[in-house]
Amino acid sequence: MALIVQKYGGTSVGTPERIKAVAERVIRWVQRGHDVVVVVSAMSGETNRMVGLINAIDPAGAAREKDVILATGEQVTIGLLSMALQSKGQDARSYTGGQVKILTDEVHTKARIRHIDDGPMRADLAQGRVVIVAGFQGVDAASNITTLGRGGSDTTAVALAVALKADECQIYTDVDGVYTTDPRVEPQARHMPLLSLEEMLEMASQGSKVLQIRAVEFAYKYDMPLRVLSSFDDDSATPKSTLVTREEDVMEEVMVRGIAFNRDEAQLTISGVPDQPGIAYQILGPVSDANIEVDMIIQNVGRDGLTDFTFTVHRNDLAQASLLLEQTAEKLDAARCKFDDQIAKVSIVGAGMRSHAGVASKMFKVLADEGINIRLVSTSEIKVSVVVDEKYLELAVRVLHEAFGLAAG
Amino acid sequence: MALIVQKYGGTSVGTPERIKAVAERVIRWVQRGHDVVVVVSAMSGETNRMVGLINAIDPAGAAREKDVILATGEQVTIGLLSMALQSKGQDARSYTGGQVKILTDEVHTKARIRHIDDGPMRADLAQGRVVIVAGFQGVDAASNITTLGRGGSDTTAVALAVALKADECQIYTDVDGVYTTDPRVEPQARHMPLLSLEEMLEMASQGSKVLQIRAVEFAYKYDMPLRVLSSFDDDSATPKSTLVTREEDVMEEVMVRGIAFNRDEAQLTISGVPDQPGIAYQILGPVSDANIEVDMIIQNVGRDGLTDFTFTVHRNDLAQASLLLEQTAEKLDAARCKFDDQIAKVSIVGAGMRSHAGVASKMFKVLADEGINIRLVSTSEIKVSVVVDEKYLELAVRVLHEAFGLAAG
Repeated sequence: MALIVQKYGGTSVGTPERIKAVAERVIRWVQRGHDVVVVVSAMSGETNRMVGLINAIDPAGAAREKDVILATGEQVTIGLLSMALQSKGQDARSYTGGQVKILTDEVHTKARIRHIDDGPMRADLAQGRVVIVAGFQGVDAASNITTLGRGGSDTTAVALAVALKADECQIYTDVDGVYTTDPRVEPQARHMPLLSLEEMLEMASQGSKVLQIRAVEFAYKYDMPLRVLSSFDDDSATPKSTLVTREEDVMEEVMVRGIAFNRDEAQLTISGVPDQPGIAYQILGPVSDANIEVDMIIQNVGRDGLTDFTFTVHRNDLAQASLLLEQTAEKLDAARCKFDDQIAKVSIVGAGMRSHAGVASKMFKVLADEGINIRLVSTSEIKVSVVVDEKYLELAVRVLHEAFGLAAG
Repeated sequence: MALIVQKYGGTSVGTPERIKAVAERVIRWVQRGHDVVVVVSAMSGETNRMVGLINAIDPAGAAREKDVILATGEQVTIGLLSMALQSKGQDARSYTGGQVKILTDEVHTKARIRHIDDGPMRADLAQGRVVIVAGFQGVDAASNITTLGRGGSDTTAVALAVALKADECQIYTDVDGVYTTDPRVEPQARHMPLLSLEEMLEMASQGSKVLQIRAVEFAYKYDMPLRVLSSFDDDSATPKSTLVTREEDVMEEVMVRGIAFNRDEAQLTISGVPDQPGIAYQILGPVSDANIEVDMIIQNVGRDGLTDFTFTVHRNDLAQASLLLEQTAEKLDAARCKFDDQIAKVSIVGAGMRSHAGVASKMFKVLADEGINIRLVSTSEIKVSVVVDEKYLELAVRVLHEAFGLAAG
C-alpha cells in the first residue's frame, strides 16, 4: 500500500465523460490498496475562455483579479470529479488551493509555493476518502487568491507529493511517457521507461512538453519519483510509462538520452554596451523586476571596451521585455537593440555526457553538415543547447536524433 | 455622502460590454460622493452551463460539491468588474464570499447567512476603494463553500447593507421598479415609486420576480431601505425606481396595491388522514427535513375523524416531496395522495386591507364572474392568495387589476 499523488491535465478532464473515466481510473488505484490524492487542471478550453473574457475587459488588468478569475477553472473540475467519484460509491472530498491550504508568495499569476498544510488531507485519507485538489492555485498570507503560472498544476502535484511524503507522483497526460524526442517531429523516437530527474530537468527546461520545468525542479530538489503516463491508455497495475527518478536508479548509461526542442522563445540582443562590472545586472535587473523569466544568457568577450549581450525570454514576454531593453539602451547610450522571435532552440541531453568529451563538437558538426547556422550556444553539465533559425528546427532534431543513435529498433 | 450597497444581476453583467457599463455606473455613484459596495451575480447563462455539467456527472450529486462548482460563476464576475473599474482609474478590490467573510450554516445549496465580517470592506472603503463581493455564496465554519439558493445574490446584498449599516441597498435589475402587476400580463400595470417593506414582502413571496423573498425578509427584519432600479436606463442622480421602505414612510394609502402571481408551485394533497394532534408535523416534518420549502398549508375541518391536508412546494421540489408524502401515506394508512403542478397562485396585496372588510369577498366575486374556480385560499393581514388552474392565470390577473382600480392613468 502506497500513497500516490496523481495529476490529470486539461485534456484528461475535458468533458464530463472524460471526468467519469478519470474517476474509474482513480477507483482502480484505490482498489489496488493505495491512498490517492488527485490534482486536476481546468477542463481544456476553459482557461482560454477566461483569458478571452479578461482581454475583453483589459488585457493589462490587475494581476490580483486575473488570478481570482483564472482560479475558477480548476474549482469547477474538483467539484465535478468529486461528484463523479461519490456517484460511483467512492467517498471523496474536494479542496481549492485556499482550502488545503497551499500558501504562496504574493506574486500574482506566477506565485511560488511556500507551505502546504497536509493535516486535513491526511485526515480524509485516513477515513478512506480520495482527496481532490485544484491545481495551479494557492493563497497568499492575506488570503488573496494566487495562481502558479504556466503548468502550475504539475507543480501543485509534486508539491503535494512532497508535503505528504508520497511514494510516487503520477502525471497523467495524453502521452504514455517521455520519448527520445517528439514523435511528431521524428517518427523513429523511442520510448524511455526510465530517466534520471536531472536528465528530465534538462529535457523539460529545454522544451519537452510532457512535464513542466518547475514541477521537475521541485521533484529534483526533494527527490520525489515522478511517473509520466497516459490517461487514454487501458488501465493496468503496471501501465506503460516513464519513471523519472534518482540518477543512481537509472541503470542504462548512454551518452545522449534525448533531443529536446522549443520554439516558444524570442531572442533579444543589446549591442555596444560598456564592458564593465555590473552591466549584466543593469540590463537584466529591470527584466526580472517585471517577473519575466530569462532562459539563455550569452555575453561574449568584449572589444574596444564594448560588448554585446544576448538573452532569450518566452515569446509572450517579448513585447514587454523589448520595451524594457530599449529603455536600458537609452540610459546606456548603447548602439542598438535587436529582437527576433523566428528562432528555435535544440538541445541534446544525457547524463553520460559528463564523462564523454566531444559531444558538443559532434553536435556542431552534424548541424554544419546540413548547412544549419548556429546562432547561440549554451551548455550545462548534461546538455548542450543551440539556437537556430526556426525553419531549421525539424531538420536539426531529425539529424541529431539519427547521429546520436536514438532511433527505435 | 452615503454608503450604498448595489447589486447587479446576471443580465446586467451578461457580457464584457455590460460589465464595463456597470463599472461606469458605479463610478458615477462614487463621483457623487458615495461609498459603494457592489454585489454581483454570475454572468447570465453561466449558472445554467454549470448545472449542465453537474447533471452530466450526477444530478443527485453531493450538495457540497455542487456549491464548489456553482460558486465559481460569481467569482469570475467580481474579478472582471474589479478589473473594469481599475482600468477606468477607480481603485477596487474583489472578495469571494469566503474572503469577506460571509459565514453561513452548513446547509449546502440553501445556506443561511449567520455573520458577516465588515472589517476588511470598511478598510477598503476608507481608502477610496470600491468593494466588489460575489453574491450567492459564503463559507461555513469549517471553510466549506456554501451557496444561498435561488436569488441568493439579492440576499447577499441586503445582508452586506445591514452589516455595514448602509444608507440604502440598490437592486439593479432589468426593470425600473415594481409595478402593480407584471406589465407583460397586464399592459395597464402602473409603476409604484414607493412601497412598504411589508407590502413588498407579500408581493415578493407571492411571486413577483423583481426581488427575492429572502432578501426582502432580511431587509424587513433589519429595516433596510431597498431601491429597485434598472441597469439599462440612462443613469441619473435620481433614477426612476421603486423605493421599498418602512410603512410609516409610505404616504399613499390605497386598499389594494398590487397583484402578484406565481406559476412555480405544485400542489400536494393527502386525503383521509386521522384528524388528531401532531398530524401536521407527521406530514410536513419529513418535507422540511429534506430542506424543501413549503409555501401554502391548508387543512380543512375534519369529518368522521379524518381530514385532508394540502400544501404547495416549488415545482422543482415536487418529485422529491411527492415521494416523501407517499411514504407518509403508507405509514398513516391514508386513503390517497394527489399531486398537481398545473396550478397558479394569484394574490392581491395591500397594507390598506387591514382596515377594509370585504376585500377578499370582492376578489372571489370577480373571479367567479369569469368562471374561474378557486382551488385553495390563504390569507394574511395584507394579502389574499388563491390557487387556480394555471390556464386561468392571465385572465385572473387582468380582471383583478381592473376591478381594484390599479390601471395606469
